[in-house]
Amino acid sequence: MTKILDGMRVVEGSAFVAVPLAGMQLAQMGAEVIRFDRIEGGLDSERWPLAPSGRSLFWAGLNKGKKSIAVDMRSTEGQELVTRIVTAPGPDAGMFLTNLRVRGWMDYETLSQYRRDLIMVTLMGDRHGRPQVDYTVNPALGIPDMTGPEDHDAPVASALPAWDLIAGNMVVSALLAAERHRLRHGNGQEVEFALKDVAAATMGHLGMIGDAVLNEAQRGKAGNALYGAYGQDFVCACGQRVMAIGLTARQWAGLVKVTETGAQMDALAQRTGRDLGDEGVRWEMRHEITAILAPWFAARRVEEFAKEFDKRGITWSIFRSIKSAVQDDPDLSAENPMFSMLDQPGLGRFPVPGCPAQFSDHARTKPAPAPELGQHTEEILGDVVRLSDTEIAQLFDNGVVQSPRYAARSAA
Amino acid sequence: MTKILDGMRVVEGSAFVAVPLAGMQLAQMGAEVIRFDRIEGGLDSERWPLAPSGRSLFWAGLNKGKKSIAVDMRSTEGQELVTRIVTAPGPDAGMFLTNLRVRGWMDYETLSQYRRDLIMVTLMGDRHGRPQVDYTVNPALGIPDMTGPEDHDAPVASALPAWDLIAGNMVVSALLAAERHRLRHGNGQEVEFALKDVAAATMGHLGMIGDAVLNEAQRGKAGNALYGAYGQDFVCACGQRVMAIGLTARQWAGLVKVTETGAQMDALAQRTGRDLGDEGVRWEMRHEITAILAPWFAARRVEEFAKEFDKRGITWSIFRSIKSAVQDDPDLSAENPMFSMLDQPGLGRFPVPGCPAQFSDHARTKPAPAPELGQHTEEILGDVVRLSDTEIAQLFDNGVVQSPRYAARSAA
Repeated sequence: MTKILDGMRVVEGSAFVAVPLAGMQLAQMGAEVIRFDRIEGGLDSERWPLAPSGRSLFWAGLNKGKKSIAVDMRSTEGQELVTRIVTAPGPDAGMFLTNLRVRGWMDYETLSQYRRDLIMVTLMGDRHGRPQVDYTVNPALGIPDMTGPEDHDAPVASALPAWDLIAGNMVVSALLAAERHRLRHGNGQEVEFALKDVAAATMGHLGMIGDAVLNEAQRGKAGNALYGAYGQDFVCACGQRVMAIGLTARQWAGLVKVTETGAQMDALAQRTGRDLGDEGVRWEMRHEITAILAPWFAARRVEEFAKEFDKRGITWSIFRSIKSAVQDDPDLSAENPMFSMLDQPGLGRFPVPGCPAQFSDHARTKPAPAPELGQHTEEILGDVVRLSDTEIAQLFDNGVVQSPRYAARSAA
Repeated sequence: MTKILDGMRVVEGSAFVAVPLAGMQLAQMGAEVIRFDRIEGGLDSERWPLAPSGRSLFWAGLNKGKKSIAVDMRSTEGQELVTRIVTAPGPDAGMFLTNLRVRGWMDYETLSQYRRDLIMVTLMGDRHGRPQVDYTVNPALGIPDMTGPEDHDAPVASALPAWDLIAGNMVVSALLAAERHRLRHGNGQEVEFALKDVAAATMGHLGMIGDAVLNEAQRGKAGNALYGAYGQDFVCACGQRVMAIGLTARQWAGLVKVTETGAQMDALAQRTGRDLGDEGVRWEMRHEITAILAPWFAARRVEEFAKEFDKRGITWSIFRSIKSAVQDDPDLSAENPMFSMLDQPGLGRFPVPGCPAQFSDHARTKPAPAPELGQHTEEILGDVVRLSDTEIAQLFDNGVVQSPRYAARSAA
């Protein structure tokens, strides 16, 4: 079965979320992705969450379908091997992703001496080269300040490292854009960007920077309300909490109709002289609107209205914990063709996602599990670096590279 | 000045965040992006935040650098025009992004009859085709359940529509991957994916689904702590709140050293028999660690330690509101070459971001402002659909298309 990026080879020297995610997504679209790591494993090899065995579910999730080579990069020989892997010939190779930013032997200037058309994408913390992570960028730009209940004083950071995830996806597009250019014009190039710039640009794109500069009022916390129109969470008679949306005129009309609150909404509009057909008015009057809708939800169990809401095309959902979502929502199970139940060696059996995008000319394939550290060391030294068996054996014996098979043989 | 995607033409029929963001990012990388809208404007034309003039900063932010055509798509003539724009010839054209999911004249089966190698990327709500938005997907999968202070009962949704932003970036990569395939094999294709699947896959990639299935303990709220290692917010003597990170061994050692808390950390390790060198132990003992570090921060103003922290490479930041970030942080101003001060007609003057990625063979260019609705109607009908001036004039007179220039002339 073919995949959309079949034939492409990408090398990755990385840790944590963004760059590993980029490489993993390329692998799930069919690229051969080689991740190199230190002999002892990358900085992220033990990152939480862990499986009951103590092994990292995080690492397994972000490195699915890659090939792994373990190299001692403190040695000149190890540095030379990585250089040869990154700059190996092939029209669909010569692409390198990293967030390690090692100066000298691993920078673009040096590597591109071995392959003139090298494409290298480097993700930094901030544009000054200072260390920054999602957990520091996000507070610095003010998202936690806008997040949380209206009466809560302190900033609230989300449990999701959104900027890392966005930056990782941008690494993919930057690489594909640079490769498209190379296909047409022959030249490779260096692509650099910073996590903090990704966040700043994205907030600018959403209008948040213009808002902060031009408007006197500061955007405050708004609990779980949908910003700028209507959308609110409600607790139902069964204790479940739902989110119901009235962003577009159609969604708003649907919500009012299905809850039979039209007369009350009209009365509210008349009393205040404001037009609830205007999304901004719905936002400004969200508390009054919620006061009308809340009793309707409080008087009903979710099961009493769920089918009707779906039938009428209402945009809504139930708040869940991830545990209850995994138990109750078929979209998070192998019923969803994006997921497959996989036995991941040393971790366990659970639903593992493949690529969300469905390309019509390429059937969905099962996601491949993550490699063991160094699992493909021999294969890569042979097929990519084109070393002989004797040369490979020497590298193992000198401790320049490692693999699970060699480690087991040495221990025996 | 050249850009990385010069020559590519993409057509966009969209609203809200994800697909407009995708088109805008392609435009900032050099593609010609044509967004078509209804004569009265898209569903997102008045989305908040608004400028003091009442015009949408959101719309302006997500449509920078695009060309705009306004068409009456209820009419057969309008549908035919959009079809001809989407399927216009050219080796670097025939690419269509949408989240409108109109059946019949605008589906892949119909459009590809006019251009066999059409690439069409469609973003849906969920995989069943039901309406879902970031504000409903996110609660359904449990991120708000894990977000918020430890003692807070209710779910807390972030102010950032992260899934929309991630999905928008995936639209870009899916398009570039499909175009890469078309360049090599000649065939176009349909690419479909769902916002909810993007979220579910991403949470799976982070190990969250494996964690929920395999581990008995449910991941709970942890305030602003960095999950799985050490990282915490602290209030300083000046009242400012900072985030300080001890994720890697190096970050942790740096944090302990600069705060001179080594002896206390050693005593804690000895008392509990636990190894703080293990990131998971730092996570489990975060409250004890925070109790040691908090007095250090509480006794100091940020200005007393900021330079020292930077000099020693500590990973940290100050919590800000977006207003204070815009005022105080040069990374959010035109001092950062990614930003330019732009006068946006009808909105005002503020720092506007370009593409975060810096391609070494392409100089940064100023971001272009968003178009007026229908600003390029005449140009697109002439250059892309190849209509004569007489044909174009007729379309205007029959109300099939609109432009600000024509509207002004009619009003005069």
